[in-house]
Amino acid sequence: MRDHNLTVYNSLTRQKEKFETLHPGFAGMYVCGPTVYNDVHLGNCRTFISFDIIYRYLKFLGYTVRYVRNITDVGHLLDDGEDRMSKGARLDNLEPMEVAQKYTLGFHQVMRLFNTLPPSIEPRATGHIIEQIEMVKKILDNGFAYEANGSVYFDTIKFAKETGEYGKLSGRVIEELLSETRDNLKNQDEKRNPADFAIWMKASDEHIMRWPSPWSIGFPGWHLECSAMSTKYLGEQFDIHGGGNDLKFPHHENEVAQNLGACNVHPARYWLHTNMLLMNGKKMSKSDGNTISPYELLTGNSSHVSKGYSPMVVRFFMLQSHYRSTNDLTDDALQAAEKGYKRLMEAYKSLDSLTSNQTINSELDEKVSSIIQGAWDDMDDDFNTPRAIARLFELVTIINSLKEGQTSLDKISQNSLKELKEAFNIIIFDILGLKVEDGSNDESVDGLMQLIIELRQIARSNKDWPTADKIRDSLNELKIQIKDGKDGSTWTYL
Amino acid sequence: MRDHNLTVYNSLTRQKEKFETLHPGFAGMYVCGPTVYNDVHLGNCRTFISFDIIYRYLKFLGYTVRYVRNITDVGHLLDDGEDRMSKGARLDNLEPMEVAQKYTLGFHQVMRLFNTLPPSIEPRATGHIIEQIEMVKKILDNGFAYEANGSVYFDTIKFAKETGEYGKLSGRVIEELLSETRDNLKNQDEKRNPADFAIWMKASDEHIMRWPSPWSIGFPGWHLECSAMSTKYLGEQFDIHGGGNDLKFPHHENEVAQNLGACNVHPARYWLHTNMLLMNGKKMSKSDGNTISPYELLTGNSSHVSKGYSPMVVRFFMLQSHYRSTNDLTDDALQAAEKGYKRLMEAYKSLDSLTSNQTINSELDEKVSSIIQGAWDDMDDDFNTPRAIARLFELVTIINSLKEGQTSLDKISQNSLKELKEAFNIIIFDILGLKVEDGSNDESVDGLMQLIIELRQIARSNKDWPTADKIRDSLNELKIQIKDGKDGSTWTYL
Repeated sequence: MRDHNLTVYNSLTRQKEKFETLHPGFAGMYVCGPTVYNDVHLGNCRTFISFDIIYRYLKFLGYTVRYVRNITDVGHLLDDGEDRMSKGARLDNLEPMEVAQKYTLGFHQVMRLFNTLPPSIEPRATGHIIEQIEMVKKILDNGFAYEANGSVYFDTIKFAKETGEYGKLSGRVIEELLSETRDNLKNQDEKRNPADFAIWMKASDEHIMRWPSPWSIGFPGWHLECSAMSTKYLGEQFDIHGGGNDLKFPHHENEVAQNLGACNVHPARYWLHTNMLLMNGKKMSKSDGNTISPYELLTGNSSHVSKGYSPMVVRFFMLQSHYRSTNDLTDDALQAAEKGYKRLMEAYKSLDSLTSNQTINSELDEKVSSIIQGAWDDMDDDFNTPRAIARLFELVTIINSLKEGQTSLDKISQNSLKELKEAFNIIIFDILGLKVEDGSNDESVDGLMQLIIELRQIARSNKDWPTADKIRDSLNELKIQIKDGKDGSTWTYL
Repeated sequence: MRDHNLTVYNSLTRQKEKFETLHPGFAGMYVCGPTVYNDVHLGNCRTFISFDIIYRYLKFLGYTVRYVRNITDVGHLLDDGEDRMSKGARLDNLEPMEVAQKYTLGFHQVMRLFNTLPPSIEPRATGHIIEQIEMVKKILDNGFAYEANGSVYFDTIKFAKETGEYGKLSGRVIEELLSETRDNLKNQDEKRNPADFAIWMKASDEHIMRWPSPWSIGFPGWHLECSAMSTKYLGEQFDIHGGGNDLKFPHHENEVAQNLGACNVHPARYWLHTNMLLMNGKKMSKSDGNTISPYELLTGNSSHVSKGYSPMVVRFFMLQSHYRSTNDLTDDALQAAEKGYKRLMEAYKSLDSLTSNQTINSELDEKVSSIIQGAWDDMDDDFNTPRAIARLFELVTIINSLKEGQTSLDKISQNSLKELKEAFNIIIFDILGLKVEDGSNDESVDGLMQLIIELRQIARSNKDWPTADKIRDSLNELKIQIKDGKDGSTWTYL
């Protein structure tokens, strides 16, 4: 384990706290994953990229991290009480699990494009029905739920009164909840109070996703899966629970209630929430047309961007905001991020060519050390990537100045240069999770070959045989062959 | 739907049969997937590539195909009675589901490399414990299983005597089974007969993968998951059940018994089995060192191959054997496959440049039509890819002869050329699932740039400014910049 002073902002206590895990050296993290009835939203991508940074940084610090991110393939209740997965299935004329498979594959592909590490375990809600039924039983046994017509509801009011815990995470006051008239759940007449929520739902005849249970043929309530799966894979108590801000209420509040109701313990010590991804200063919204999908952003196939941006540019752009701040996607900001990303990669590439012979400490050495230490301090300060990236650009300035000879290479010591190279590498690739992206090589190869074919033609016209031979030999080594035809020359790989 | 005369070899009836689906226009196919406690074997890759061809061909014929391929993440019994997943978990010091996640991701990656289409549904055994418990209940209710100390065993002898169905698929005779003394199962004393097999196992204390059931805290027997999941996603009866030959007994035989025992119906109309992948004429075997992994084959990091072969060369190599024949992997055969694959791709690339003006039918037109029809007939004949590939090479000869002017382009009609292009495209890409593979572009780009940097140096030395300018301008267009330094020139993307 590396020495560190990691502090994280805990949504539960509303303050930054020193990060200490339940079991020294091990960190358990649960993040609410996607609902796979639709393509993943770019806002979700931001959340998952944020937790990817947290996962990478904890690993870098030396923790053995078990990162659990679920796949919700059942259980989301719509306003009309329909399960979202079933609705998607009917629209696409597919079985629910075909829909889930399609969008799970799509989600994984987008996550790979953005170079996020896969979680250690990716449990599916439908794969943990037994665990959810067992949890319902426990909550019933503890008196915090009641059955009505084959469905089981969490008794929010009783839980709130007896424990005083309801509303702590989200800051909702139970009296407000009681007075709320809006009730999204089906069979609301079955509920004793509007604030109660289903933990098991009896399936109507049309409902195709259904399992037997002690109460009815039905399906679990949406909030339950995360309580059941985090408990199964991380234990009743674990270190970090994460998700988007929008999940704080009711999802996370109800998760806490379920875990307390079943196991009498707060599930997570630290609750981390990511802020919203905006577009042009406003909330993304399909109905307003103010939205862009990951692929639209990558291909430029949207009126909101002037062109497509590469996955690493998008990732870099997102990391330039702190995960707890809103992140405003604009074409200008993306253009700036593209320049910044390229500048960073240029500096990285030129690092290898820098050498030094100086052995004693110089002013520059100290400056380099202090900037690097600053970057670690930034990461320790609730994973502050934008500040750490700003430090990287201070290093870029130094690297460029050394490279261009504006600062003599004698001014930096071997040790300092080594430290600079190591830190630059670790922060860019291991922690920020960026990759070298060289654009489309296919196009480049063909473009370069067209140029070489022309140069070969010039050499032949000039009877410059040594040059023509050099071209032939070099291409042979690259296993590329030029074929001359009536309409000009073409090339192929051998 | 296209007209077709597809016949498939049915392992159950031991003959080729006309392929007719239960529901016209729809085809349901279940294929036994990998056990994710280890890296996928190359032999398994052959099986999945074979069923990928079948999936692609059925789709091409116009069927709406539901292709279900499971992930076995629990339930394989080892000789010592330990669950394989749990064993892997202890060795790696990981939770079973972390092991499953790691190898599932690895499996998906290999499948992507080989360009296999993902199945429509990829159900996990651990995600269908309830369905398996329900099936155990049905088999018990029908009198074909018995409980002993919390475990439930399939009563093979009773089932065999009452139905006469046991052994039909594998050709095993029940008397032989009765006399077999070897018994791999734990708690064999609980079994009434050695041929009986567990459908539910009581978990010992050490067993970490466990679920509650009416009989014990335990886990399902290995054979059960495929019966339960095929029934759930394809119905009690469906069209095709596939898998490797080695699964015929006991796995598939027991699957049939379970389905008949629970639902009183044969699950699949057509049973398709792939034959073995050999290496140098012998069965692959780790203990003999006669084995190679997918990555070893792709990278060449093995004494069994002279170099690495690209995923498409390996795929092409495998398709050159019929799925019911053994496939003998040797370095010579791979080299030949590489040449063949490249020859095919060359012909494909040159197709676009062929033109024709002739409008009446010629001898060549008829020949082209007849070869193409032959390829479809081959595919209709139990998916005979090696014969279809041989037809493609007949077309390659024609294409090359047209391209090189040995056969006048006037001899082929517009229609025939169109037919040739379409069929070539569909067979190579849609049905055989090959991709254009141009080798490593990264290396090529750098190699070409080194050559261009040299040519630029020569032009400058010769004061050949027009050539130097042409190089500069062409590279500018490609957004490539050469930077001159003290130690020579380097290049970067702009």
